Amino acid sequence: MATLQDITLAAALNILSAFIFFVAFAILRLQPFNDRVYFPKWYLKGLRTDPVTGGAFVRKFVNLDWRSYLRFLNWMPAALRMPEPELIDHAGLDSVVYLRIYLIGLKIFVPIAFLAWAVLVPVNWTSTGLEAGMSNITSSDIDKLSISNVHSRSQRFWAHIIVAYAFTFWTCFILLKEYEKVAAMRLQFLAAEKRRPDQFTGLNLYMSFRYEIYNHVYFWLIEKIVVYNANKLAKLVKKRKKLQNWRVYYQNKLERTSERPQIKTGCLGLCGDKVDAIDHHNTEIDKLSKEIALERDKVTNDPKSIMPAAFVSFKTRWGAAVCAQTQQTRNPTMWLTEWAPEPRDVYWSNLAIPYVSLTVRRLIIAVAFFFLTFFFMIPIAIVQSLASLEGIQKAAPWLKPLINIHIIKSFIQGFLPGIALKLFLIFLPTILMIMSKFEGFGSISSLERRAASRYYLFSFVNIFLGNILTGSAFEQLDSFIHQPANQYPITIGTAIPLKASFFITYIMVDGWAGIAAEVLMLKPLIIYHLKNFFLVKTEKDREEAMDAGSIGFNTGEPRIQLYILLGLVYAAVTPSVLPFIIVFFGLAYVVFRHQIINVYNQEYESGAAFWPDVHLRVVIALIVSQIVLMGLLTTKKAASSTPFLIALPILTIWFHIYCKGRFEPAFVRYPLQEAMMKDTLERATEPNLNLKAYLQNAYVHPVFKASIDDEDEEDANSQKWETESVTVPTKRQSRRNTPLPSRISGASSSPSLPDAIRQQPEP
Amino acid sequence: MATLQDITLAAALNILSAFIFFVAFAILRLQPFNDRVYFPKWYLKGLRTDPVTGGAFVRKFVNLDWRSYLRFLNWMPAALRMPEPELIDHAGLDSVVYLRIYLIGLKIFVPIAFLAWAVLVPVNWTSTGLEAGMSNITSSDIDKLSISNVHSRSQRFWAHIIVAYAFTFWTCFILLKEYEKVAAMRLQFLAAEKRRPDQFTGLNLYMSFRYEIYNHVYFWLIEKIVVYNANKLAKLVKKRKKLQNWRVYYQNKLERTSERPQIKTGCLGLCGDKVDAIDHHNTEIDKLSKEIALERDKVTNDPKSIMPAAFVSFKTRWGAAVCAQTQQTRNPTMWLTEWAPEPRDVYWSNLAIPYVSLTVRRLIIAVAFFFLTFFFMIPIAIVQSLASLEGIQKAAPWLKPLINIHIIKSFIQGFLPGIALKLFLIFLPTILMIMSKFEGFGSISSLERRAASRYYLFSFVNIFLGNILTGSAFEQLDSFIHQPANQYPITIGTAIPLKASFFITYIMVDGWAGIAAEVLMLKPLIIYHLKNFFLVKTEKDREEAMDAGSIGFNTGEPRIQLYILLGLVYAAVTPSVLPFIIVFFGLAYVVFRHQIINVYNQEYESGAAFWPDVHLRVVIALIVSQIVLMGLLTTKKAASSTPFLIALPILTIWFHIYCKGRFEPAFVRYPLQEAMMKDTLERATEPNLNLKAYLQNAYVHPVFKASIDDEDEEDANSQKWETESVTVPTKRQSRRNTPLPSRISGASSSPSLPDAIRQQPEP
Repeated sequence: MATLQDITLAAALNILSAFIFFVAFAILRLQPFNDRVYFPKWYLKGLRTDPVTGGAFVRKFVNLDWRSYLRFLNWMPAALRMPEPELIDHAGLDSVVYLRIYLIGLKIFVPIAFLAWAVLVPVNWTSTGLEAGMSNITSSDIDKLSISNVHSRSQRFWAHIIVAYAFTFWTCFILLKEYEKVAAMRLQFLAAEKRRPDQFTGLNLYMSFRYEIYNHVYFWLIEKIVVYNANKLAKLVKKRKKLQNWRVYYQNKLERTSERPQIKTGCLGLCGDKVDAIDHHNTEIDKLSKEIALERDKVTNDPKSIMPAAFVSFKTRWGAAVCAQTQQTRNPTMWLTEWAPEPRDVYWSNLAIPYVSLTVRRLIIAVAFFFLTFFFMIPIAIVQSLASLEGIQKAAPWLKPLINIHIIKSFIQGFLPGIALKLFLIFLPTILMIMSKFEGFGSISSLERRAASRYYLFSFVNIFLGNILTGSAFEQLDSFIHQPANQYPITIGTAIPLKASFFITYIMVDGWAGIAAEVLMLKPLIIYHLKNFFLVKTEKDREEAMDAGSIGFNTGEPRIQLYILLGLVYAAVTPSVLPFIIVFFGLAYVVFRHQIINVYNQEYESGAAFWPDVHLRVVIALIVSQIVLMGLLTTKKAASSTPFLIALPILTIWFHIYCKGRFEPAFVRYPLQEAMMKDTLERATEPNLNLKAYLQNAYVHPVFKASIDDEDEEDANSQKWETESVTVPTKRQSRRNTPLPSRISGASSSPSLPDAIRQQPEP
Repeated sequence: MATLQDITLAAALNILSAFIFFVAFAILRLQPFNDRVYFPKWYLKGLRTDPVTGGAFVRKFVNLDWRSYLRFLNWMPAALRMPEPELIDHAGLDSVVYLRIYLIGLKIFVPIAFLAWAVLVPVNWTSTGLEAGMSNITSSDIDKLSISNVHSRSQRFWAHIIVAYAFTFWTCFILLKEYEKVAAMRLQFLAAEKRRPDQFTGLNLYMSFRYEIYNHVYFWLIEKIVVYNANKLAKLVKKRKKLQNWRVYYQNKLERTSERPQIKTGCLGLCGDKVDAIDHHNTEIDKLSKEIALERDKVTNDPKSIMPAAFVSFKTRWGAAVCAQTQQTRNPTMWLTEWAPEPRDVYWSNLAIPYVSLTVRRLIIAVAFFFLTFFFMIPIAIVQSLASLEGIQKAAPWLKPLINIHIIKSFIQGFLPGIALKLFLIFLPTILMIMSKFEGFGSISSLERRAASRYYLFSFVNIFLGNILTGSAFEQLDSFIHQPANQYPITIGTAIPLKASFFITYIMVDGWAGIAAEVLMLKPLIIYHLKNFFLVKTEKDREEAMDAGSIGFNTGEPRIQLYILLGLVYAAVTPSVLPFIIVFFGLAYVVFRHQIINVYNQEYESGAAFWPDVHLRVVIALIVSQIVLMGLLTTKKAASSTPFLIALPILTIWFHIYCKGRFEPAFVRYPLQEAMMKDTLERATEPNLNLKAYLQNAYVHPVFKASIDDEDEEDANSQKWETESVTVPTKRQSRRNTPLPSRISGASSSPSLPDAIRQQPEP
């Protein structure tokens, strides 16, 4: 068990590393040549331009204004300054509501911490359970503040029980208020002034009949966009893009070295004939372009490539709302209607999976995820045994002399076994995303939501339970099956107070330092400068080299939930954990607010559709904390008071059911009244609106749009359209540069676009 | 353990008692004075009249035609003769689909029984496990046929595992086919020719705003019927009805005895002044009538008695379908729309419960049901201890001489303790229905469905588990909590084969004899003749004296499910149970088909909305059977083969999820395409239909209709309307009497009714 000194030392170290990260960030972000790494959001919105215009040459790359370094932390208050409604305009509702999860953490834990320190810490501290009972175990100062210090059978446990009730009611109250607020924000956002294509559009899946039937059912139909199976086309376009990048790279090389670069055509460029790299790429790209034109022709003309899915747009929002919420035919697996996701949010390649295949895929993934969660240690253990000294000596005896070198030996012994696990954990979100994609969800947002639930389950089992109990996840599962049901909470409850100092360290390393590293954005920084050096020729290239990234709901949210779980579990057991969690939430809130304002560029906008998941997981954490407390009090033989806790999980479950009935419909349905009001308003204010033109190309597969860009080089119009739906002109300008007129602000009325699908572009 | 002889004897006894019931039924049903007890359905449909017209006086009461007694069992083939489509016309879809549950039992168990007897019985019989292993336990012949007879660690268990797979696949196949069929029947029924008010109507709940908003949202609205809080009025009307019955009784007495009957006005007619009974009742009824008129006036004029619920009818089926499936406002608890139940199906007094109160009620009932299931033995044990010899002597010492009489003593000892339990079990369905009513469901069909699930859970815990394991339900719960999770199936699995003979006896007593008693209808028979003697004066009275009853889904379905559970659990363990179950299903099918044709008069028609519940419970039974088999094989140490069973529950759960997605929408939603087609057809065939008149009084609280009947005595019109929605003219006539013209057939166009609500009837 760690003593108070250990914890203090660890805290100091972590605070120091976080401080170093922040200083590095403060310096790097002020350098003009990093501007596109740390402020990409403003570039994407067209509100900031390269600081190249005027000034000395050095100033283009290095900031020589010493005064700006003095105020190196003032990005923090700046991040908090933008009001919420403006932030919604600036970054979308998803990001703002995502920030509210951090706020929830603060709202829940600040009062809980005060109460816990006011009531529980004195109660625990003045007890003498540790001295009396377990004198053989060395107890730390932190344990003196925890419930472990209370005597068995003590009447003092009543304090813990009453406080547990207070914690539950407070958490539920905050959850209720927040659900109310988020639901209202979502509905307001959906009904907001701005017209969006998905307000008018439903997605129809699994249709296996003639399309004429539509007009029979909906008389407000105005536009139907059939989904083509363009997966092969997308692949070809991607390949050409890659070749084009290489061509640019070789051309840049030619310019620098004045020597025509040559490559080998064989595998991986290692063998085969030597040819001129640029010529070779030119011919390859030409070949591919022809192939793409052919394929596009085929896709648009061959009836077989029409998938049984279509985006159906309506004259009114009301019509779309009705279509999305009702059943159309007898067999729901033959024709399913749902809300069309936002155009950016559509995950195209999953749109044509038939229903039976979908259910089979779900079964496969459920089984696979079970094995992933409980048995992932097995392949890692195998890799680790192979990567050990003996393993390598056995597998490759000829490496023996190399291994015996001291440095390599200690490297293998100390570092290699951990690498397999670290690599796995780094790739875990990707694995989970691939799983979700295989399951067949039709929008990126739902893919991320599903991956987030899986990630939460995984960390619950392998981080929370895995660190509390001994043995691998599978061994725990096995011992749980062989234990009586009433032993589960007791086993966990006994171990919980002992692990407090471990989790404090975990919070500091993973939470504090992790958040500070987030703001530094090391990976995008390096990649941007590499790209900038090798590829960038034009302004457009530089724009493409930026990697703004996004919030990463699928990894970020489960991580917050883990901290909420830890906070709620330790609130009544070891209140010393709470300050560390509060610092994490506070820091993370500021950092993510800054990132959302300046960096992240959300790929899609789901209108905070993830909130029911967030709510559910906090409720789960609450119930886990109650059960753990029950188990703990049972081991403390507080038999007279423990039964009073039984009501808590029941009430919490009931609270969840109530909230589900009350608020969840706002996230899965769309009220007709709102739609009708909005329609009426629009008809009154814009009687001559050409909605058909507006919706015409909203749901065209991106590959068709992209190919127009590349082919005809007249991307202005299309680009304009695309960015229009991405960016929102805000009142605010980027802070450091002079307010230039936005490249796209003012372009609010929808232009009539080149009729990409209907009129085939000439190859 | 019962031997084969014991079982044979019990079977013989039960067959005999069933036979006696059938003979009694055959004789009684042929007597003309019982005609209204055994053929009430035909009377209610107006297709059969009293056999009074013509013939000798004796013939009116006793059937003297000896030939009809010879063919006393020919009601059985007659019951099977009516084809299914005609039966739907005759008795409604609910009844027909309810019959299909029995058919499912036959379809599942007949092939399973053949397979089990062909494969498992030889495998078990030729083993010698019982002789070798447990020579100390006396084993019966039945055990020799069961899995108990197979040696531990035997390779023969592979046969059981393969057969278990076959059973699962067969059951799932039948379930799938049946779900498909029932869903198709439901949709066809809903879209059938006949116009029904609920096709055009949605139910709106929790509205707390001005009603003008309707027209804003729905432009096809044609009729809105506000729900009044008429609970007090209904109570008054019921009270008057009772008094009127007593008046009739005394008038009949007067006619018989020519002496004016007198009653005491005090409590229970035991004390107080003597008054003339008829006069007293006349004045009381007059008083009550005035009170009713006042109350009705108040209800219809006082805005406070308007409940926040309304039945909203539309011009088209399409409109109603849209209204029922969509969300209207931001806050779903402020305005909830759903399908209106059929007018007969509405449970009026629950229509005005606000959302928060609903969720609280659900919590209360969930807790109450938990205690009812696991602790119901406690009050019964207290009653039993009071009703024992010592208890009575202690509580009432003055009864001592009475108790010491031999007969009374043995009665108390042998009978009284059982009575408390029996009484509880008789009242259990009523208790569960009261619970469901308290929960606040708005239609009788959903009340019955909920009560059925509770009844199933109760019998699963207290009949299935309760008889397998020792101790009361609470003791079991306690031992289950203190047992490792993997011990549950082992504990049940070990006990299962030992209890085979008990359950065989249970099936015979509860199943065979119970079904035979069902057809005899002893209670309605007695009550009808009592009423007939004391109350009946007019033809209408006689009609009211009939108690046709209904299927009783809330008790009948859980009972079938218990047999399906027993059958599936014992199929692979003790195949000897199967023939008894098959006989039950066969017998029950014939009996219930007869009852549905001739007796039961369904109170409502839900269009087989209960099928998803039925499906779910069979799936649960399947999973329980698989888990029990796994536990059993574990105790048999068949470690190498048991893991092969793990896939079964996973596949079964997946099958259930598939079926839920594929078929359940047909039971909770209404396809727009169908609605649209039906609307179009109707508009073409009946362009001048006055739908407003048709729907005007469909959803009027029955108390308003009833009071019109009684007040103005002009019930012809209203009665006509009421029966119109209840009965369907069929092609077939009742079999025994001459085909008289139906009293209501031909009345298909809707008459314009007295405008009960809008124009207040004069008091």
